[in-house]
Amino acid sequence: MKILDVTLTPVAFADPPLLNAMGVHEPYALRSVMQLHCEDGVVGLGESYGDAAFLDQVRTALPGIAGHDVFDLPGLRRTVAAALGDVVVTDAHGLTGGFSSAKTLAAVYSLVEVAALDAQGRYLGRPVVDLLGGRARERVDFSAYLFYKYGAHLDAPADDWGETTTPEQLVAQAHRMIGDYGFGSIKLKGGVFAPEREIAGIRALAEAFPGLPLRIDPNGAWTVETAIAVAAELDGVLEYLEDPTPGIPGMAAVAEQAGMPLATNMCLVRFADIEPAFRARAVGVVLSDHHYWGGLRDTQALSTAAAAFDVGLSMHSNSHLGISLAAMAHVATATPHLTYACDTHWPWRDTDVVTGDILTFRDGAITVPDTPGLGVDLDPDALARAHEDYLRCGQTSRDDAAYMRRFVAAFEPNTARW
Amino acid sequence: MKILDVTLTPVAFADPPLLNAMGVHEPYALRSVMQLHCEDGVVGLGESYGDAAFLDQVRTALPGIAGHDVFDLPGLRRTVAAALGDVVVTDAHGLTGGFSSAKTLAAVYSLVEVAALDAQGRYLGRPVVDLLGGRARERVDFSAYLFYKYGAHLDAPADDWGETTTPEQLVAQAHRMIGDYGFGSIKLKGGVFAPEREIAGIRALAEAFPGLPLRIDPNGAWTVETAIAVAAELDGVLEYLEDPTPGIPGMAAVAEQAGMPLATNMCLVRFADIEPAFRARAVGVVLSDHHYWGGLRDTQALSTAAAAFDVGLSMHSNSHLGISLAAMAHVATATPHLTYACDTHWPWRDTDVVTGDILTFRDGAITVPDTPGLGVDLDPDALARAHEDYLRCGQTSRDDAAYMRRFVAAFEPNTARW
Ligand SMILES: [Mg+2]
Ligand SMILES: [Mg+2]
Repeated sequence: MKILDVTLTPVAFADPPLLNAMGVHEPYALRSVMQLHCEDGVVGLGESYGDAAFLDQVRTALPGIAGHDVFDLPGLRRTVAAALGDVVVTDAHGLTGGFSSAKTLAAVYSLVEVAALDAQGRYLGRPVVDLLGGRARERVDFSAYLFYKYGAHLDAPADDWGETTTPEQLVAQAHRMIGDYGFGSIKLKGGVFAPEREIAGIRALAEAFPGLPLRIDPNGAWTVETAIAVAAELDGVLEYLEDPTPGIPGMAAVAEQAGMPLATNMCLVRFADIEPAFRARAVGVVLSDHHYWGGLRDTQALSTAAAAFDVGLSMHSNSHLGISLAAMAHVATATPHLTYACDTHWPWRDTDVVTGDILTFRDGAITVPDTPGLGVDLDPDALARAHEDYLRCGQTSRDDAAYMRRFVAAFEPNTARW
Repeated sequence: MKILDVTLTPVAFADPPLLNAMGVHEPYALRSVMQLHCEDGVVGLGESYGDAAFLDQVRTALPGIAGHDVFDLPGLRRTVAAALGDVVVTDAHGLTGGFSSAKTLAAVYSLVEVAALDAQGRYLGRPVVDLLGGRARERVDFSAYLFYKYGAHLDAPADDWGETTTPEQLVAQAHRMIGDYGFGSIKLKGGVFAPEREIAGIRALAEAFPGLPLRIDPNGAWTVETAIAVAAELDGVLEYLEDPTPGIPGMAAVAEQAGMPLATNMCLVRFADIEPAFRARAVGVVLSDHHYWGGLRDTQALSTAAAAFDVGLSMHSNSHLGISLAAMAHVATATPHLTYACDTHWPWRDTDVVTGDILTFRDGAITVPDTPGLGVDLDPDALARAHEDYLRCGQTSRDDAAYMRRFVAAFEPNTARW
């Protein structure tokens, strides 16, 4: 079934002022929606990043895509690779580790692959999960993704989440999010305040939600020494400790001392990182993310490599909409080794470009439907509105640090700060 | 699409007296053919081992299979695992390394998985390669698989290949096989004679077929010291050296000294072997074999783990018929990292249970068709004849050593003999 035409639509949606080690989220999150228009009226959907540098590379690859059969994934990958050459796309926030041509290719190809798999499923009348090996689980658990945050964007009224900077406010945020979605585990985005303050936040959450697995992710904000000290303090409290310090050697040094597994979506972000990270025993849990791991099939491939080394698998999230959530849920449903609850920014957005209610959380989990493809359909009006928001918002990239400097003039990213 | 019924048919076909480190092939090779009878008249085909110990375990798993959807591969695997428990099937020849419950489960499940994927493809109207990620290559190259051999089985007339024990006879065997099939690389099954004699055989092949990649596989017949010496002698002559010595530590010791990559289908035969083998840098090429690696999807998973560690991928073969050849060709077509020519015993058999000519070699390669599923159909008469041969032949296992002792009374397997 041939691809006849491809459209790429940048979209924007409101994003609260969420804090992390690199700064603070700008008022809009940017995404892109790909539609593969195929024979027989089939349209395959994909979603990925929306910053200008990424869109440029996708647009570079677009002209070669029409004419391919949607089942010709290797050919589509070769076409994308040939169009990109050795280009390396960087982003301003750096929250998913280093940049490389391999990672750039994986990211651009992923967008195409997801849309092609959606088209395959629609054509065959089968859900994407069936093209990935079938249902390894009934439901995909997600975790409550807590953030320290400002109460309002610059020159804007307070959002309805309000400010979160104290342990009490964290617990309140968790109560609301778990009340709304039923999540059974909690992740705190750290790296914002000094470790003692974030430890206090974790301890407050542990007390308020006994038995719920807890994680903290300071995005490499700590030195090796600090990370070892925090790991000792939170031993028995954390399910895993995510990217406490930058780089494979530092992570390995912490892992040797820490009582809990170290997780990462920063020091192991492409297949070439697997050998050095695994040889160094730097990580106990890899956070997969199909958006930069080369799509759904390569996310499963990562899972196997991890399983062979007894390294666990979880899932990373960026701000995203419903097409990405559906793709995340399909691949997680089909991947037996993905036993940790997945991250999602889902509760932080209040709009979407897809219709229907298949992405409804029950007890913190999603069950993907048996409908063809990803099971989500575009809402053309919503897509048009989100595209207008993109054009109107004026943002073309995500620069958490630059925006943060408008709050705190001397701000520098907190990498290995403490 | 539900599985309604399953049939398992043991078959036998004539096999020449091929020599290896463990002894000599008995007069018949044993295989099993699985048919998954599904809704809508779809029948999915699988092929695997035919020895009694394996058949017993498949039969243990059979009762749970009907009722599953053919897309429910995880459920089928769970059903097989529950039926088998911790059972460990051993074989008498040991040519594919050690035994474990994980390998037993992988072997039994593989038979079911291949048949289920064939049924999926037939149901969807797509070739199996499309369910495995699409065509990464147009054609799958196979190698000429040369054997030292006796001229005849006991109490039987000479077969038309005749005896092969000298370099001249090896070259003649290669000329015939390459003339018939067009293979572009050569593998010699060694471990039969003292290394000097087999080195002379390789040198004769190198002279007769300049430019063709050459491999030798003594199935662990050499000590570490001998293996290092042979590697030095054949440096620049061999594409890879396969299982020169038993075990990961021995292979690692040889690999450190050898100028060519070491390949294996003996010291790395299940996912749990990957970490120790890769950490020790024991192998440069893994020979995959879907029959004991858990099927076609897990063969691709193995490929990814190998690629991440810059370890190459080739493919192992046992004596097999057309369903297995089709499965091997489909997974090889879909697996980009499988860049070495695959092994196959195909030239050594002269019968089949499938119809048609899709398995025709051109220039030593097979191109899988676009027809649904594996693209091969059972010939019911041929299957019945092969089953009668199974019942009549009296063999119920493959014991190369026991049969060898009828030629050479004092024979013991040549493991680390030289
Ligand atoms: Mg992270
Ligand atoms: Mg071998």
